Amino acid sequence: MFKLRLLATVLIVAPYVLMTSASAWDVLPTTAPAPADNPTTEEKVELGKMLYHDPRLSSTGTVSCSSCHNTMLGGEDNRANSMGVNGQTGGRSAPTVWNSAFNAVQFWDGRAPSLEAQAAGPVTNPIEMGMKDWDAVVARLKTIKGYNQAFATAFGDNSVSKENATKAIAAYERTLITPNSPYDQYVSGDKTALTEQQVRGMNKVAELGCTSCHSGAAFNGAGAFQTFPIHENAYFSAQYHFKKDKGLAEVTKNEADEGLWKVPTLRNIALTAPYFHNGSVKTLEEAIKIMGKLQLDKDLSKEEVADIEAFLEGLTGQFPKQTMPTLPPTLGNTVN
Amino acid sequence: MFKLRLLATVLIVAPYVLMTSASAWDVLPTTAPAPADNPTTEEKVELGKMLYHDPRLSSTGTVSCSSCHNTMLGGEDNRANSMGVNGQTGGRSAPTVWNSAFNAVQFWDGRAPSLEAQAAGPVTNPIEMGMKDWDAVVARLKTIKGYNQAFATAFGDNSVSKENATKAIAAYERTLITPNSPYDQYVSGDKTALTEQQVRGMNKVAELGCTSCHSGAAFNGAGAFQTFPIHENAYFSAQYHFKKDKGLAEVTKNEADEGLWKVPTLRNIALTAPYFHNGSVKTLEEAIKIMGKLQLDKDLSKEEVADIEAFLEGLTGQFPKQTMPTLPPTLGNTVN
Repeated sequence: MFKLRLLATVLIVAPYVLMTSASAWDVLPTTAPAPADNPTTEEKVELGKMLYHDPRLSSTGTVSCSSCHNTMLGGEDNRANSMGVNGQTGGRSAPTVWNSAFNAVQFWDGRAPSLEAQAAGPVTNPIEMGMKDWDAVVARLKTIKGYNQAFATAFGDNSVSKENATKAIAAYERTLITPNSPYDQYVSGDKTALTEQQVRGMNKVAELGCTSCHSGAAFNGAGAFQTFPIHENAYFSAQYHFKKDKGLAEVTKNEADEGLWKVPTLRNIALTAPYFHNGSVKTLEEAIKIMGKLQLDKDLSKEEVADIEAFLEGLTGQFPKQTMPTLPPTLGNTVN
Repeated sequence: MFKLRLLATVLIVAPYVLMTSASAWDVLPTTAPAPADNPTTEEKVELGKMLYHDPRLSSTGTVSCSSCHNTMLGGEDNRANSMGVNGQTGGRSAPTVWNSAFNAVQFWDGRAPSLEAQAAGPVTNPIEMGMKDWDAVVARLKTIKGYNQAFATAFGDNSVSKENATKAIAAYERTLITPNSPYDQYVSGDKTALTEQQVRGMNKVAELGCTSCHSGAAFNGAGAFQTFPIHENAYFSAQYHFKKDKGLAEVTKNEADEGLWKVPTLRNIALTAPYFHNGSVKTLEEAIKIMGKLQLDKDLSKEEVADIEAFLEGLTGQFPKQTMPTLPPTLGNTVN
């Protein structure tokens, strides 16, 4: 946790550095770097895709990673709070899996330092996928012949384990990239790719300082933590209860971390309503107004909001065509 | 309902006719016939695939057709009873969607005369997908721009409707066929496709009369209704409560229909545990024993059961590679 807070502190005291780098208008890379101990291979990606879409990784056999982080949609579920096993809901909104490879840390509170670490969490969260523990997950996977084979192909014989399962899922997630949005095309030189209104919106987000935090190619501050909300507003507080959830402090139990959040990506944001960590805001328009008021202390005009919304729609990328995985069967028996 | 019962009666009094046709050992067709008022087109199949996989067809946005009839698995969920919105469960086990195009009637109790009629049901079932009514479904689909376009491509302008949604889903389901199982290869002339044990099992199911009911290429009696269980057995009754659910009589409210069920397909049965209408039997081995005792009044030997199980495993077909649909987004807003 100390490392996390250190990172947060460094990034909070250095907003000007981030602002500079943001003005570069970076194009989204088409590939994501993999950590040294988990180089991406086709076999891992294929296995990870199966695991990611397999509801048998949940206690009830009804919830897969994709149930809440839906790869057929904008990488999440368009719900305020996701629904886990037995109809349970938590207090946070599912972040998109698309381009999550470009987040330096994962989860709203950034408590996971990698995709690998993130993938281990929801499976054994009692209100998400509800498995008792990873031993139970591994035991179940071992009963499925096809998984033993797929792990063997990806990692070598007898390699079904928590470590390899999460490595495979992370390897698959690193392929979930949506390049070539109208914004990327524009920045790459096609000046017709964005409308005039979108270009006005683009200049506005830089001018207002949105990109101080939402910086970099993924507009996610590359691991920056920020306070939200910065400014008090009685109306929005009454409506949306943003401060009920204390963000990073829920993990660190440190008062100084209250209200600190990982900067979420703006990529594909037009597809991922509702908004904010608690999913309390239904429209992108309202989300923009709120960010203006609570982060910048500005009442954005109707036109400014419309321009910014138009620009954000220009951040919707191209989704790669994927083959549906054929999940290895539970032969002649059930898993639960 | 009258028509349903008539069909049931005709088929029950004519088991010998069915037995004769079963001995033909038919190969599974690679295409399924479509009704005259819903010819299969590529555009309908594409739209149907989207709708089939879209959890926004449920009240909570968490349950799609594929949640219970999983196209990445054996066409169902390997659960005793499926889990619908808000963690609710019913009393029946999800039948497989694979090869359902070859069922003359749909649902365990055969109450739907077509795939189109079937598709309309679960969406508004309060414990399945939980939508208030189809007007609400259509209203929601109309808020999604991409669906308006996809319906227009498949059915013409302004064509979002219950009728067209169910037609598209049915058109997609007609493509879900798993041909070329070891059994099909064997019957087509490749005598090495089944093992000796599997051939013993194949002869055994004919000799015992299993194929009197499980007849035809899909081993599903082509719309036949049959009584289950026929014979009483105190042990199995105490274990599995088969008679608690009255089958067709739950629909017709006619005492004569108690215990009448559509004959389910045996195709891919090794993938679709647990077994029977209430999903109470966990293994294929036990299911075979039960069928021998309750339907044929025979105590099958260990060897007979093993041979039949081996044969049934030879009914696992080849699953077509499918492209994952990209669902049209709920732009900048939520559906619920």
